[in-house]
Amino acid sequence: MREARKTAVIVIDMQNDTVHPEGAFASTGAADHAASQHVIPNVLNIVETARATSTPVFFHRIVVYPGEVGGSNAPIFRMLGPESFKLGTWGAEIVDELAPLEGEIVLDRNRMSIFNGTGIDHMLRNLAVTDLVVVGAWSNMAVEHSIRDAADHGYDVTTVADATSSLSAEWQHAALNFALQNIATIADTDSVITALRS
Amino acid sequence: MREARKTAVIVIDMQNDTVHPEGAFASTGAADHAASQHVIPNVLNIVETARATSTPVFFHRIVVYPGEVGGSNAPIFRMLGPESFKLGTWGAEIVDELAPLEGEIVLDRNRMSIFNGTGIDHMLRNLAVTDLVVVGAWSNMAVEHSIRDAADHGYDVTTVADATSSLSAEWQHAALNFALQNIATIADTDSVITALRS
Amino acid sequence: MREARKTAVIVIDMQNDTVHPEGAFASTGAADHAASQHVIPNVLNIVETARATSTPVFFHRIVVYPGEVGGSNAPIFRMLGPESFKLGTWGAEIVDELAPLEGEIVLDRNRMSIFNGTGIDHMLRNLAVTDLVVVGAWSNMAVEHSIRDAADHGYDVTTVADATSSLSAEWQHAALNFALQNIATIADTDSVITALRS
Amino acid sequence: MREARKTAVIVIDMQNDTVHPEGAFASTGAADHAASQHVIPNVLNIVETARATSTPVFFHRIVVYPGEVGGSNAPIFRMLGPESFKLGTWGAEIVDELAPLEGEIVLDRNRMSIFNGTGIDHMLRNLAVTDLVVVGAWSNMAVEHSIRDAADHGYDVTTVADATSSLSAEWQHAALNFALQNIATIADTDSVITALRS
Repeated sequence: MREARKTAVIVIDMQNDTVHPEGAFASTGAADHAASQHVIPNVLNIVETARATSTPVFFHRIVVYPGEVGGSNAPIFRMLGPESFKLGTWGAEIVDELAPLEGEIVLDRNRMSIFNGTGIDHMLRNLAVTDLVVVGAWSNMAVEHSIRDAADHGYDVTTVADATSSLSAEWQHAALNFALQNIATIADTDSVITALRS
Repeated sequence: MREARKTAVIVIDMQNDTVHPEGAFASTGAADHAASQHVIPNVLNIVETARATSTPVFFHRIVVYPGEVGGSNAPIFRMLGPESFKLGTWGAEIVDELAPLEGEIVLDRNRMSIFNGTGIDHMLRNLAVTDLVVVGAWSNMAVEHSIRDAADHGYDVTTVADATSSLSAEWQHAALNFALQNIATIADTDSVITALRS
Repeated sequence: MREARKTAVIVIDMQNDTVHPEGAFASTGAADHAASQHVIPNVLNIVETARATSTPVFFHRIVVYPGEVGGSNAPIFRMLGPESFKLGTWGAEIVDELAPLEGEIVLDRNRMSIFNGTGIDHMLRNLAVTDLVVVGAWSNMAVEHSIRDAADHGYDVTTVADATSSLSAEWQHAALNFALQNIATIADTDSVITALRS
Repeated sequence: MREARKTAVIVIDMQNDTVHPEGAFASTGAADHAASQHVIPNVLNIVETARATSTPVFFHRIVVYPGEVGGSNAPIFRMLGPESFKLGTWGAEIVDELAPLEGEIVLDRNRMSIFNGTGIDHMLRNLAVTDLVVVGAWSNMAVEHSIRDAADHGYDVTTVADATSSLSAEWQHAALNFALQNIATIADTDSVITALRS
C-alpha cells in the first residue's frame, strides 16, 4: 500500500443471503464457510478500524430488482432471485453486525463486479483513493471479479484471506491461490488492521 | 423508433431541487422554465402511458452523497450540494406528482450522465430495449449528456421538447437545436404518447 | 489547473475528414470554420509546448471500421462512412501538420466520446493526470461529449476556444456558451501555452 | 447459445509473447501448455469455421504502449513490459497461423479484460450479438476476466476447454472448474464447430 490516507475499505455483499445461517444460500455451504472463516467478526474489526482512522468505507450489496432487469444469460444470474437477494427483503440486507452507520455509503447493483453498475470508481477517484482493502463474500464471484476490475482500474488492492468467504474451503483456496495472487496482495485481518492504524 | 415492445421511458432528475418552485435552484429560473414547459404534467402523461402499455419506466435521481465523493472538479459539481440534492432530503426526492409506484426502479447517481455510475445500461440490455424515450431536467446538462451517451451505447433515442426543461427558453433552445438533433429524434408529448400506444 | 506535472493534452479528431479542405465534410463548412479558427496551427502550438514541457499528449481519431460495427442508431452515426473516416484511408489520417511523433499514443474509436471505447481513462490515471487541456474538432460533437465525460470522470478540464472548431461560428458559439462553461474552463491558445510552460 | 446469427467469436491475446516457444513468457510454461492444448490449431479451426459461416470474429491483443500508461499497481502489470508485449514488436504480434485477414478487426488494450479499454461492447451490440465463443490465452487472466465481464454485460458465453491455454494444466483446471462454470458454458472445439455450422 502507498500512503494510508489514500486507502479505502470495500465491503462486498456481506448480506444475510450470502453469509447468514438462515440466508437463501446457507444450504450451499456458504454460511458454514463464513462461520469457519470468522468473516463477520473479521470484517467488523476492519470496518471499525477504518472508522477509527478516518479511512473511507463503502458497503456494497448485490440485489435483485423487480422485473427482468437482472438477465438470465449466465448460470450465476439464474441462481439469483426470484426469492433471494430481493430488494427490500431481509435476505438482501447487510448482516446486523455490519450495519452501516449514518453517513456511510451503501451501493446496490445486480452485476458481479462492483465496477459494473455503480459509481464506486468515480467516488474513489474523487477521494483520491489509490489503495483498496477488499473484504466480503463470495471470494470466487463478486469479490474476485471486483478485485480483477479494481486492478484494471489502477488500484493497488489488498484482499484479506480471513475476511472473505466462499462456498467452501476448496473454492476459497482456488480464489486466493490461482486468481488473486497475480492481481492483489493477500493479507490477513491482523496485518491489515496494523497497516490501517499506522 | 423500432418496435414498441423494445422501448423504455427514461425519466431524468424530476426532483424538487430541479423543477419545484421551492427547490434549491428555483431562483435560477429552473422552476419557472419547468412550469412554462408544463414538464411535470407532460412527463406524467408519458409515464402513465408507459404504465398502461407495459413499457418499462426507469426513474433517475442526481443526489449528493455524504462526504466528498462527488468531487469539485467541474463548475457543475461545485454547484451541487452541500444543501441541494442531498440524499435523504426533500430536495432530492422526485416531485410528488411523479412518485414512482411500487416495483418501479429508481437509480441514484452523482454524475451528469445516467450511464456514468448506474446499472441502467445493463438493465436495458437485459430487457432487450433498443429505443429510449428520454424526458426530464435539465435539458442542457444531465438530459443532454445522458442522450449523448445513449447514442454512443447504441440506443435509438427520442427526446421530447415539451417534456424536458432547463434554466430558461434560451438554454432549452441551445440543447434541442445544436446538441441533440444530431444524436436523437426530437418529438413532442402527444406524438410520443401516440407512438407508445401503437 | 492544479500542478503542471499532472496535466495532459488531449487532441481530438484532427483528421483530414474533419478539418481539411479536401476532407469528406469540407462542404458542410467544417474546413472553412477550421481555417477561420486557425485550429491546426493553434493545436500544433499547444502540442509542441506539451512536448517541450514533458506534458503527455494523446491523439484520438474517430474511425469507421469494416462491417456494421459502428451502428446506425443516431443521425451522427449515419453520417459517418461508408467513405468517410474509413480506417486505412487518407480521410481517417491525422492532418500532416499534427502527425504524431514516434512514441506518442494514438487511440482509435468509433463513438463520439473518447471515454466510450478507448483506454484513455485508464492511461490518464496511471499517469496520475488530474487536469486535461482538450483541443480538436468538432466542438459540438466529439469534443463536447468527451469533455462532459471527462468532467464526470473527475478531471479538471480546460478547453481552448481557438484550438477547437466545428461546422460554423454559430455551432461553435453554442458549444462554448451553453454546453461547456458549466463543465470546463474556457481558455485561449496563448493562455494555455503560458500555463503549460509555468 | 441462442440463434447462430447472433454469435461472435472472440480471440484473446493469441500473441507470440503468450503462446509461442520463442515468446517472452515461454519459460513460465505458457508455450508448453499452449502446445499441449493444441490451442493454435484449435483456435484456427474455430476461426475458419466462423469465417465460413459469416460469424463475426474479433481479435484482441494485450500490448504495452510507450511510457508509463500501463501502470504498475498489480503484480500482473509489473510482469508486462518493458520488453514483452511491446507495441510494434514481434512479441506483441498475433501468431502467424492466426493472422487476421483484411477486414477483420483487431483491438488493442493494456488491461486484462477486453471490456476495459476497447470498443468491443459497443461493436457487439451494434451487430446485435448475444452469444460469445471465447478462446485464447491465458485462461486464468485475460480470458477469465473478459468472460466474467461478458457475463456481467449480458452475453451468453461459451468458452472452449481445448482452445484456451494458461501457464500449466493446474492453472487451466482452476480457471475452468472454479471460476468459469458459474459464468459460462464450457465446451470443446468440436462441439463449438458443430454449433457454429448448424
